Amino acid sequence: MTNSATNLRLKLPMACIILEVIIIILFGTLVQYDDETDAKLWHKEIANGSSNYDNDFYYRYPSFQDVHVMIFIGFGFLMTFLQRYGFSSVGFNFLIAAFALQWATLMQGFFHGMHGGKIHVGIESMINADFCTGSVLISFGAVLGKTSPVQLLVMSVIEVTLFAVNEFIVLTVLGAKDAGGSMTIHTFGAYFGLMVARVLYRPNLDKSKHKNCSVYHSDLFAMIGTIYLWMFWPSFNSAVTAHGDDQHRTAMNTYYSLAACTLATYGLSAVVAHDGKLDMVHIQNAALAGGVAVGTAGEMMLTPFGSMIVGFLAGTISVLGFKFLSPILEQKLKIQDTCGVHNLHGMPGVLGAIVGAVTAALATKEVYGDGLVCLFFTSWESSGDVEASFQGIRQAISLAVTLGIALLGGLITGFILKLPIYGAPPDTICFEDGIYWEVSLATTPSHFVWMNGHTGLTDLYIVFV
Amino acid sequence: MTNSATNLRLKLPMACIILEVIIIILFGTLVQYDDETDAKLWHKEIANGSSNYDNDFYYRYPSFQDVHVMIFIGFGFLMTFLQRYGFSSVGFNFLIAAFALQWATLMQGFFHGMHGGKIHVGIESMINADFCTGSVLISFGAVLGKTSPVQLLVMSVIEVTLFAVNEFIVLTVLGAKDAGGSMTIHTFGAYFGLMVARVLYRPNLDKSKHKNCSVYHSDLFAMIGTIYLWMFWPSFNSAVTAHGDDQHRTAMNTYYSLAACTLATYGLSAVVAHDGKLDMVHIQNAALAGGVAVGTAGEMMLTPFGSMIVGFLAGTISVLGFKFLSPILEQKLKIQDTCGVHNLHGMPGVLGAIVGAVTAALATKEVYGDGLVCLFFTSWESSGDVEASFQGIRQAISLAVTLGIALLGGLITGFILKLPIYGAPPDTICFEDGIYWEVSLATTPSHFVWMNGHTGLTDLYIVFV
Amino acid sequence: MTNSATNLRLKLPMACIILEVIIIILFGTLVQYDDETDAKLWHKEIANGSSNYDNDFYYRYPSFQDVHVMIFIGFGFLMTFLQRYGFSSVGFNFLIAAFALQWATLMQGFFHGMHGGKIHVGIESMINADFCTGSVLISFGAVLGKTSPVQLLVMSVIEVTLFAVNEFIVLTVLGAKDAGGSMTIHTFGAYFGLMVARVLYRPNLDKSKHKNCSVYHSDLFAMIGTIYLWMFWPSFNSAVTAHGDDQHRTAMNTYYSLAACTLATYGLSAVVAHDGKLDMVHIQNAALAGGVAVGTAGEMMLTPFGSMIVGFLAGTISVLGFKFLSPILEQKLKIQDTCGVHNLHGMPGVLGAIVGAVTAALATKEVYGDGLVCLFFTSWESSGDVEASFQGIRQAISLAVTLGIALLGGLITGFILKLPIYGAPPDTICFEDGIYWEVSLATTPSHFVWMNGHTGLTDLYIVFV
Repeated sequence: MTNSATNLRLKLPMACIILEVIIIILFGTLVQYDDETDAKLWHKEIANGSSNYDNDFYYRYPSFQDVHVMIFIGFGFLMTFLQRYGFSSVGFNFLIAAFALQWATLMQGFFHGMHGGKIHVGIESMINADFCTGSVLISFGAVLGKTSPVQLLVMSVIEVTLFAVNEFIVLTVLGAKDAGGSMTIHTFGAYFGLMVARVLYRPNLDKSKHKNCSVYHSDLFAMIGTIYLWMFWPSFNSAVTAHGDDQHRTAMNTYYSLAACTLATYGLSAVVAHDGKLDMVHIQNAALAGGVAVGTAGEMMLTPFGSMIVGFLAGTISVLGFKFLSPILEQKLKIQDTCGVHNLHGMPGVLGAIVGAVTAALATKEVYGDGLVCLFFTSWESSGDVEASFQGIRQAISLAVTLGIALLGGLITGFILKLPIYGAPPDTICFEDGIYWEVSLATTPSHFVWMNGHTGLTDLYIVFV
Repeated sequence: MTNSATNLRLKLPMACIILEVIIIILFGTLVQYDDETDAKLWHKEIANGSSNYDNDFYYRYPSFQDVHVMIFIGFGFLMTFLQRYGFSSVGFNFLIAAFALQWATLMQGFFHGMHGGKIHVGIESMINADFCTGSVLISFGAVLGKTSPVQLLVMSVIEVTLFAVNEFIVLTVLGAKDAGGSMTIHTFGAYFGLMVARVLYRPNLDKSKHKNCSVYHSDLFAMIGTIYLWMFWPSFNSAVTAHGDDQHRTAMNTYYSLAACTLATYGLSAVVAHDGKLDMVHIQNAALAGGVAVGTAGEMMLTPFGSMIVGFLAGTISVLGFKFLSPILEQKLKIQDTCGVHNLHGMPGVLGAIVGAVTAALATKEVYGDGLVCLFFTSWESSGDVEASFQGIRQAISLAVTLGIALLGGLITGFILKLPIYGAPPDTICFEDGIYWEVSLATTPSHFVWMNGHTGLTDLYIVFV
Repeated sequence: MTNSATNLRLKLPMACIILEVIIIILFGTLVQYDDETDAKLWHKEIANGSSNYDNDFYYRYPSFQDVHVMIFIGFGFLMTFLQRYGFSSVGFNFLIAAFALQWATLMQGFFHGMHGGKIHVGIESMINADFCTGSVLISFGAVLGKTSPVQLLVMSVIEVTLFAVNEFIVLTVLGAKDAGGSMTIHTFGAYFGLMVARVLYRPNLDKSKHKNCSVYHSDLFAMIGTIYLWMFWPSFNSAVTAHGDDQHRTAMNTYYSLAACTLATYGLSAVVAHDGKLDMVHIQNAALAGGVAVGTAGEMMLTPFGSMIVGFLAGTISVLGFKFLSPILEQKLKIQDTCGVHNLHGMPGVLGAIVGAVTAALATKEVYGDGLVCLFFTSWESSGDVEASFQGIRQAISLAVTLGIALLGGLITGFILKLPIYGAPPDTICFEDGIYWEVSLATTPSHFVWMNGHTGLTDLYIVFV
C-alpha cells in the first residue's frame, strides 16, 4: 500500500518546517499587537477614559470561538463520512487550517491591514484568518481523498494569497458588503476547488470507487460536523459585522434561514431519493446551504421572512444539485467533486451574492434610519437612497470578479499540483487513510473480515484475523 | 424492509413544505425585528445615549449558543445510543427542532410577545423558541424508534402550541417563576410524551426488542450528547434570567447541582446495576437530573449547599426510577418510554417544581435585598415578605396546571397520531434506520457478530446469521 | 471477567456517597455567594452606581464554558483512543472531574479564598476549580486503564489538596505569574501522575498489551477530544487573566503558539514515524503542546513571533518524546505512562515555566507601559524594571517548588493507592471496560466480524479470531 512515490518522510517535513520557518520570520519582521492587545497602548486608552469593556475582545471572542469550532470540528468532521478516510479528513483539515490561518494573517494583513509598515493583529484579524481558512477547506472538500497533504499545503499557499487579493478588490476597492462571505469565502472557495478538481481529473478513479462511500458510523461522525456548522453559522455570518444591531440581526437572520433550509432539505430529499427514503448526503450538506445563502444579505434588513425564503430556496437548489447536477459535472465536465461543494458552497454562494445585491439595491433611509451609513459606510458617505442602486451594482460586479479570480486561480493551481512531486495517491488507492497514516492492521474496520455473501452460494469463509 | 405504508416519498415532503410555507407566510405577516435588531430603531436608541453594549445580544448570545448546542447536539446525540437508530436520532431531532423553533417563535409570540399586532423577535425570542423545542425533544425521547418523521412533525405542531398556552398561564397569568423550565419545559415535555407513548402502546414491540439496545460505539456517541447537556445546563437555566447577579447565580447553582448529581448517579448505579458494574443508561441520563431539578429554584438564593442537596436527590431518584419504576411503567401502565424520560425529565421536573415553590415561599427581603423585587417582579410589587408564601402557592398551582395540560394534551395528540396515515413503522421493524433512511447494506454494524477469541487458537466459532 | 476483588458494588457507592456528603456539609458550613452572585450584595453595588455589565460573569463566562468543554469533552474523549476503554475514559473522567471541581472549590477557597471565615464563590472560583480538575485529569492520563474508579477518587482527594497548597505557594507566597498553569496545572499534574504510575508499576502489564492500542473509530473519537482542547486552549490560558488587553493578548498568543506547534507536529511525525506515515498518537497529543508551553508567558508581551517559536519547540520536543523518551521511561524508569502525559504536559510544562521566567525577566516599563503594574501587580509595587529579574527568579523557584511537591505528593499517593482495597484490575485485564461497566457481549467492535447472512441458513462462517 506504500511505495516510494507516496512516501512523505522527506516531503511533508520539508513542506511543514520550511513553511513554518518562513511564517515565523515574517511574523517577527512584520507583525505587531494592535491597540487592544498591546499592554502599553491599551493602558493608554484606559488612561484616556476607555473601559475594559470597550476592548473588542468582549464583542467578538465568543463569535470567534464558534467560528473556530466550525473550521476545525465542523469542516473536519463533515468530511469523515468516507469509510476509510476519517484520519485524513480530520487530520489534513487540522494541518491545512493551522497553516492557512497563519498565512492568511500575513496575506490579509499585507493587503488590507498595514499600519506604518506593520501588520496589526487582534481578535478581528483572527476571525478573518479563520474565514480565509474556511475558503481553503471548501476547496479541500472538492479534492478530498485524491490529494497528498503536501499538495494541500501548496494549494493553501496559493489559495490564501488569491483569497486576500480578491477580498481586497471586493471589499476595499469595490466597496461591496460581504460579512458572511457568500462571495469571498463560499463562491471563491467552491469554484477555486472545482477548477483544481477539474485539472486533477482522474479518469481511472472508479478503481477506488468502493472506498468512496460511507459506513454507518462514519455517517454519524459526519453529522457532528454538520450540526456544528449549522448551529454556529449565525456566529460565522455575524462575527465581523458592526457592533450592536448589526451583529444581532445577522445572527438572527442566519438562524431563520437555516431553519427554513432544513425543512426544504428533508422535504426534497424524500422526493428525490430512492424509495422515498432520506439520503444522509443531503442532510449532511444541503441543510447548511441556508447559512451560505444569507452570507451577504444577512447583515442587511432582509427580515426573518426574507431570510426564510432565501434559506428555503438554498436548500432546494442544493438537494437538486446533488441529485441532478453532480452526476453531470462528473460525467460531462469531468469534475470529480468528492464532497459536492458545488451544491453546498457554489450555487448557494452565488445565490447569496445575488440576494445581497438585490437587498442592497433596495436599501432606503426610511428602513435603515441612521443605520444606513453605518452599514454601508465604505461607500455611502453621501447617504442618499440613490446610492443603493450603485451598491447593488458594486455587489454584482464583486460576484463576477470573485468567480473570475477563483476560476483562473484554480486553473493555475491545478496545473501546479499536477506536477508528480507531491506524493499524490495513485488512482487505485484514493479515499484511503492507510497511504499516509499508520493504521493498525488488526483494528481497522476495513480489515474486519468481510464475509461476503454478495455473490451467493459460496458463502463459506474461514478467516484468520 | 420497505413497503408502501412506510414510504414517505409524498407524505414527508408534503408535511415539510406545507408547514414551511405556512410559517413563511405567517412570518411575513406577523413578525418584525425588535428594537435591538432593527437598524433604524437601534440607532435611535444609540442617538438617545445607549451604548452598543446595552444591546441584549452581548448579555445573552453566548448562552443562546450553548442552549442551541444542547438542543441539536445534546438531545440529538443522547438518543444515538440505539444500535441501529443513529441516523434517525440525530436526523429527526434535527428536523423537528428546526421546525419547532420556527413554530414556537410564532406561538410564543402570539401568546406573549405581541407589540401593536406584530411579533417582535430578538435574542430572547430565539432562546425561548429553543426552550420550547427542548420540550418537544423530551417527548420525542419517549416515542423514539416507534414513530415516523411525519408523526413527529404533527406532534410538534400540537405540542408547541400547547406549550405556549401553558407557558402563558404559568408565567403570565399565575406569575410563577420558572427560568430553567423545571415545569414548563421538563415536566410538560415528559408527561406529554409519556401520554403519547401510552396511547401509541405497541403490544408486540418485543418483536423489535433485539434492536432496542446499544452497541459499544453507539454508547460513546450518546455520551457526546450527555456531556454537552451536562456542561451547558448552567447556560440553559440562566439564559433568560435577569442580567447581573441572577444570571451569574443561576449558572453557578446549576453547576453545583449537576456535580453533586453525578456523584449520586455513579454511587447508585453501582449499587443497583448487575454485579456492581456501572450501567451506561444511568450515566447517560441520571447524571443530568440535577440540571432539571434546579430549573425553577436555580435563580433564587438556593445557595450552593441547597443546590447540591437538590442535585444529589435528583440523581438518586433518577437512577432508582430507571431500575425500579421503568419496568412497572411498561408492564403495568403500558407506557413504553424508550429513553426513560420519566426518570430524567419527569420526576426531576416535579422535584424541581416543588423545590422552586418551597424556595420562593422562604424568600425574604433580608436575604434578597433589593434583588427581591427584581427577581419576583411580576407579582411582588408590594415587596412584602408576606408575598413569599403567595408566590410559593403560585408555583405549586403552576405545577398542577402544567401536569394537567401536558397529560390532556398528550392524550389527544396520541389519538391523532394513531391515525394510520403517517407511515409509522410496524412493530417488527421499530428502532431501525433502514425504514426511513438509505443505509448501505454492506456497512451496517448490527450485522457484525461477536467473536470471542480472547484465548487464542481454541476460539473457533461457527456462526449462523 | 469479574471477581470479588474488582466488584465495586459496595466500594464505589461508599466512596461517592461519603465524599459527596462530606462536601455538602462543608459547603453548608463554609461556602457563600460572593458579591456578584448574591442578590442583596450585588443590588447594593448597583445602587452604588455599578452596571450589570461590571458583573464578572460577562467577562469570564464564555471562557469558563470553553474550559468546561476542555475538561469534560476534551480530556474525556482524548483518552477514548483505547479500543476497549471508551466507557471508562469518558465515564471516569466525568466522575472524577465532577468530584474534583467540588473538592477544589473547598481546598482553593480554604487556601486563598477565605473572606471572614467563609469561602466566597463566583465565576472565577468555578474556573479555578475546573483548572485544578484539569491537573487531576492529566494524572489520570498517566494511570489510564490500570486503576479502579475508587483509586481515582482517592487520588483526586489528595491531588486536589496538594494542588491547592502548591498553587498557594507559587501564586501567593512566591508571587509568580501562571495564568494558564504551565507550572501549577501541567507540570504539577504530569509529574504527580508519573510518580503515581511509577509506584503502581505493573511488571506483567504486557499481558494486557493487546488491548493497549487503538482501533479505527476509537482514534476518531479521540480526535474529538484533541480538537476541542486545541480550539479552546486560548480560552483556557486567558480565562483568569486581567480584563482588557491581558485576556485578549493571552488568547491570541495561545492561538499562534498552537498553530505553529501543529505544523511542527505533522512535520516531525512524518520524520520519525514508520515509513514516512503520520502517527495518530503524535497528532492527538503533540499538537497540543503549544498550548501548554505558553501557559505562563502567554499573558506577557511574548509577541506572536515569540509564541510561534515556543509552540514550534513544544511540538518538536513532544513528538521526539513520544518516539524516543517514552520507551526509555517505561523500560528504564518503570513508568508506564498510558497517554504519554510526560510528552504533552510534562516537558512542555517545564518549557513553559522556563519561557515564563525568561519573559518576565525581560519585562520593561518601556514595553508594557502602565500594563506592567497591572500584570505583575502582586510583586512589583515599586514598578521598577529592576524588579523584572526578581520576577524571573520567582518564576524559576516556583517551577522547582512545583516539581518537588508533585513528585513527593505522587510518591505518597502512589503508596496509598497500592493498598489492595480499591478493586484495582489485575494485570491481565487492564485497559478493559468490561471489568467496571456492563458491556453487551454482542457488541464490541474490535472483534466484530461481518457475517452476511441476509439469506439465512446457507450463511455459515467459520472464524478464527
